[in-house]
Amino acid sequence: MRYPESLLKLARALSRLPGVGPKTAQRLALHLAFRREAAADLEAALRGLEGLGVCRLCGNLAEGELCPICQDAGRDRRVMAVVETVADLFALERSGEFRGLYHVLGGALNPLEGVGPKELNLESLWPRLAGVEEVVLATSMTVEGEATALYLAEELRRRGIRATRPAYGLPVGGSLEYADEVTLGRALEGRKPL
Amino acid sequence: MRYPESLLKLARALSRLPGVGPKTAQRLALHLAFRREAAADLEAALRGLEGLGVCRLCGNLAEGELCPICQDAGRDRRVMAVVETVADLFALERSGEFRGLYHVLGGALNPLEGVGPKELNLESLWPRLAGVEEVVLATSMTVEGEATALYLAEELRRRGIRATRPAYGLPVGGSLEYADEVTLGRALEGRKPL
Repeated sequence: MRYPESLLKLARALSRLPGVGPKTAQRLALHLAFRREAAADLEAALRGLEGLGVCRLCGNLAEGELCPICQDAGRDRRVMAVVETVADLFALERSGEFRGLYHVLGGALNPLEGVGPKELNLESLWPRLAGVEEVVLATSMTVEGEATALYLAEELRRRGIRATRPAYGLPVGGSLEYADEVTLGRALEGRKPL
Repeated sequence: MRYPESLLKLARALSRLPGVGPKTAQRLALHLAFRREAAADLEAALRGLEGLGVCRLCGNLAEGELCPICQDAGRDRRVMAVVETVADLFALERSGEFRGLYHVLGGALNPLEGVGPKELNLESLWPRLAGVEEVVLATSMTVEGEATALYLAEELRRRGIRATRPAYGLPVGGSLEYADEVTLGRALEGRKPL
């Protein structure tokens, strides 16, 4: 006997989530089959995504045409942080250190995977730069993030806008012993007088 | 800025899945917010659970009143395997070694968690035993599964029905070096002449 088709269909839908393999998906599907309130809650929450869209200006999540940050008159419009994903945007927001605007690229340059400048949310970036004095290139500290930052830095230089990048270094609370060599090297390179 | 309410609601619903913590739930919710076909597929699959119920006889998943196994005239009705969960039932089915009927308890005895015989699907077991010659107590090889098997063995003995239990031993393909002491001890205890 095989699992019923409706259960297999649910397992397949769950296995498309990141980090959920076929075995886990089957376990989750069985869990939901026996806990119908949990399944109904999840179904309702997914339906609730209908009202959620993408900000026309920056690419952040938005319940209307513009996201709360683009609507906020109190944000510093002279500084803009360019990030890869909405998750990165919210990580910066949680730090409480950034009061400017954002621009979400939706990824990083990755020629091997066929992601060039045209695949990123860049067309809408250039018109937003009027009045912006500094762009913080807050892409990931990975090869792809680095390449994206370098590409954007060059584009911004041509437009006469200052480009910056968050500092490489040791994480707060981290021990030197457990830091990888590259990070440690970058932290030394960027050392500051006390 | 906080995440939009609809995203937080989805993250909460996802965090109720087993093995999904709040961080993972948030990541999955963001993933679904940007991949609406995946979200719609999952929503439809959850809705599809509506047609899925529980077999009136054995507690297995069923699309009608009875599951395919209870309906199957080709199964050996003289042998019944008692399992904790539907996942265990399907594991036994995959082995291809069991051709009898099943009974799903919905858990194991666990007095500390308040699970006594009344909390398990037992009332419906007794009337099913007419004509059954052997009950395979295929509960987990855990303290709770063992206690449940011992309790059921006693009940079955009073009813004059033979109770058996799958063998303890080393897993196929397993090395002695990596076996835990208890399993190794049980495997030696159950050694057989070649």
